[in-house]
Amino acid sequence: MSENEIKAQTLAKLFGGALKHCPPDRVLTEVLPLETAKISSISFLANPKYVAVASESSAGLILIGPNTDLGEQPVLVVKTPYWAFAQCTAKLHPEPMPEFSYSAVHPTVSVGLDCSIAPMTATIGARTAIGNRVIIHPGVHIAEDCIIGDDCEIYSGVVIYRKTRIGDRVRIHANSVLGADGYGYALNEGRHSKVPQVGWVEIADDVEIGACTTIDRGALGPTRVGPGTKIDNLCQIAHNVQVGSHCLIVSQTGISGSTTLGDYVTMAGKVGTAGHIHIGSRSIISGNSMVAKDVPDGSHLSGYLARPHKEWMESQAAVNRLPKILKSLKDKIDKT
Amino acid sequence: MSENEIKAQTLAKLFGGALKHCPPDRVLTEVLPLETAKISSISFLANPKYVAVASESSAGLILIGPNTDLGEQPVLVVKTPYWAFAQCTAKLHPEPMPEFSYSAVHPTVSVGLDCSIAPMTATIGARTAIGNRVIIHPGVHIAEDCIIGDDCEIYSGVVIYRKTRIGDRVRIHANSVLGADGYGYALNEGRHSKVPQVGWVEIADDVEIGACTTIDRGALGPTRVGPGTKIDNLCQIAHNVQVGSHCLIVSQTGISGSTTLGDYVTMAGKVGTAGHIHIGSRSIISGNSMVAKDVPDGSHLSGYLARPHKEWMESQAAVNRLPKILKSLKDKIDKT
Amino acid sequence: MSENEIKAQTLAKLFGGALKHCPPDRVLTEVLPLETAKISSISFLANPKYVAVASESSAGLILIGPNTDLGEQPVLVVKTPYWAFAQCTAKLHPEPMPEFSYSAVHPTVSVGLDCSIAPMTATIGARTAIGNRVIIHPGVHIAEDCIIGDDCEIYSGVVIYRKTRIGDRVRIHANSVLGADGYGYALNEGRHSKVPQVGWVEIADDVEIGACTTIDRGALGPTRVGPGTKIDNLCQIAHNVQVGSHCLIVSQTGISGSTTLGDYVTMAGKVGTAGHIHIGSRSIISGNSMVAKDVPDGSHLSGYLARPHKEWMESQAAVNRLPKILKSLKDKIDKT
Repeated sequence: MSENEIKAQTLAKLFGGALKHCPPDRVLTEVLPLETAKISSISFLANPKYVAVASESSAGLILIGPNTDLGEQPVLVVKTPYWAFAQCTAKLHPEPMPEFSYSAVHPTVSVGLDCSIAPMTATIGARTAIGNRVIIHPGVHIAEDCIIGDDCEIYSGVVIYRKTRIGDRVRIHANSVLGADGYGYALNEGRHSKVPQVGWVEIADDVEIGACTTIDRGALGPTRVGPGTKIDNLCQIAHNVQVGSHCLIVSQTGISGSTTLGDYVTMAGKVGTAGHIHIGSRSIISGNSMVAKDVPDGSHLSGYLARPHKEWMESQAAVNRLPKILKSLKDKIDKT
Repeated sequence: MSENEIKAQTLAKLFGGALKHCPPDRVLTEVLPLETAKISSISFLANPKYVAVASESSAGLILIGPNTDLGEQPVLVVKTPYWAFAQCTAKLHPEPMPEFSYSAVHPTVSVGLDCSIAPMTATIGARTAIGNRVIIHPGVHIAEDCIIGDDCEIYSGVVIYRKTRIGDRVRIHANSVLGADGYGYALNEGRHSKVPQVGWVEIADDVEIGACTTIDRGALGPTRVGPGTKIDNLCQIAHNVQVGSHCLIVSQTGISGSTTLGDYVTMAGKVGTAGHIHIGSRSIISGNSMVAKDVPDGSHLSGYLARPHKEWMESQAAVNRLPKILKSLKDKIDKT
Repeated sequence: MSENEIKAQTLAKLFGGALKHCPPDRVLTEVLPLETAKISSISFLANPKYVAVASESSAGLILIGPNTDLGEQPVLVVKTPYWAFAQCTAKLHPEPMPEFSYSAVHPTVSVGLDCSIAPMTATIGARTAIGNRVIIHPGVHIAEDCIIGDDCEIYSGVVIYRKTRIGDRVRIHANSVLGADGYGYALNEGRHSKVPQVGWVEIADDVEIGACTTIDRGALGPTRVGPGTKIDNLCQIAHNVQVGSHCLIVSQTGISGSTTLGDYVTMAGKVGTAGHIHIGSRSIISGNSMVAKDVPDGSHLSGYLARPHKEWMESQAAVNRLPKILKSLKDKIDKT
């Protein structure tokens, strides 16, 4: 059996778990999200929000906790499914060693026509493909197996991790980071164990990204930024986030893991969001707001926690007058 | 007619707009803010806040929307003045291509006495002037046409875009970015169209800037930080911001576009501000506050939205006791 | 007398202050915190919170303000102790000049077995020691006198200032900065005067640090991150902060100077804290909260300012219904 495959019964033994509705000798060769998993895939369920998705999954084996019931689905019941999933990912998707080269641009890189790549200090890793008319400034570091489209400009100090895919006419300002590991840990015996982040980042056409912004790669699949979206400085886009088209994401905003944005969403500066929520198209989130749950299309939200802007304005006004109002109410009651 | 000039009637034709109080063959050669525009300048008015300034402007042509009246001023009435302005800027102020060099320090750079510049990995662009006793660490990237004063220290990974001007005794910590594009887009036919950012950054004497802080260049003129001001890590100073002297701007604070600060302003950590407001001298803004409108000199503000600190404390106390107070009021009323 | 020592009476003369309970010819050779100061050390007291600690200190001389009484302790009474302390630090602990080298890895660096260090663009400073099986990506800059443990991976663009100590199995993502100066200034005659930051950063085993995160060095001693703690992107850890073991610090969180965290603390994204407070073990701070005072072990806090989560939920609910509640109360009163 090759290093990159494992049998269901081996996993059951490894994690001390019970196998159900799954032939013990089923061979599993990769870890995939519930939605895209195949008969050869391991997937997992930790958040009860995704029970329906798990019930429909074509995964060959789903790691679940003791209190979950997925009917006839092939499952392995374990104590901490997220941690077990992390172990499977590490086993089946080992990260390759980086391939450093004495040539700043690795000999296997393909570069299009009329590119301008700063010599010596900008490095480009093995098998990366650069389109036409791309400008790469000094001190940019692009890792292995990336694709950069036509007419992109990448400013100094930008770091692009391996497998990142960037469309046409994308501009990335200095010291931004695309494709760093998502923040995923599973607690096991008192230690936060790394959940390997083996996905990637996909940036569509006509995106602009400010300085010192971080966009993490997905855990298994892509973190995506849609066409025409403009991201300001110092923003955080966490793993598995899906940003739609033509959104405006203003400085110091942070979007938590697996949250999705529709199209034409505006997030004014310093917005925060919970993870695993959806923010509907053409919504506006006021500056410094914190969005904790799903937002319907066309909403205008404000506050901490964010609520419809008009309601928030009213309650905010009430809060500001509160000391006076309470006093006058008391006076009235005392008089009666 | 040279590439860098255009006639008023050509613009009218290009944008399908109506020319008023302006000779059709007036030659325009640059785009400038309303305040500094000359007879050869195009300027624009999008924010009604600046109508008075526009009425006094010496611009040769002002782009305005259909519902604006500027009396006898020479105007071109267009559907989206900000977008039209973006087109004019791109036409009259094209960004030069970067000039990469196989010499880490470009042969045209002037370097003062007793400087210490890390070899090989620190790059300095064409025509940049470095003062005396400057220390430049490995991996710093300074672009073309910058001026760096005496006794500065610039730590590793700092990126300085072209035309940046830095005074004496300035220290800039690792991975900060000075002079990236401001976040300016004009919506046109469903797409966010780039407003070229052709201004620059000016840092006065005795400023210190923390790590991973971003200071964007102005759209047309400078973004300015005054003498003696100290900026912490991970702060965002947006385009056209004017920071006064001896201010303290603590970590993760963000100052939105065109906002101005007086002198000796203190912004404790994580403060946010609206754009286009003024924060008076010697004001103190408590940590995590959001300032939404002009602040008089000597204020102490707190909260979201920020209000006078004492008032905010009172209403905050009332909010905290609110569930109890409401219950006791109800009881009293029910008794009466 | 060597450059790096000074007599008590010289300091008294220099600052125009009064010496008490201290022999005028006592020789002082270093500046140290109150807790670790010796008979040869200068220390200082500016925050009244630390009077008890100062009373127990073994310092040879403590700089205090005119309204402080430390009994029989050897003190120098000055107008602005923090500023005087800054001067002493600059005198006794002058920062060495950086030692740039034409060899990307300085000839005095020791490198362990099976390391993979990107050639040409990654620089390592004099006397730094690198452990076994360490991976250093292109464009990393490590300064002088650092220690890096075994099995670490340091991604592109990371900057590590001098004297930083890093344990085993530590991963640091792109463009993070360890060891930049803390944000310490003393106001003197209308100018913010730099307080030299001569401490360092200590990262324990099994820590992971995200991208574009900044961890400042201590003013005199270490800023510490305990074993197994995981820090996300764009976080700020200020000078002298002490983070315990196995904490989770999520994106865009900022921890202010000298604050301490117990073990297993979770700070969801965008949390802010005051300085000089303690956050007890196993506490959870909700996203976007601001913690202003000490937090007992096992707390769950939310809000601005952060309060026990349940209380905050109740008052938040009351605030949201406030406009309606106030109206109905008024109606009731009007009826009575």
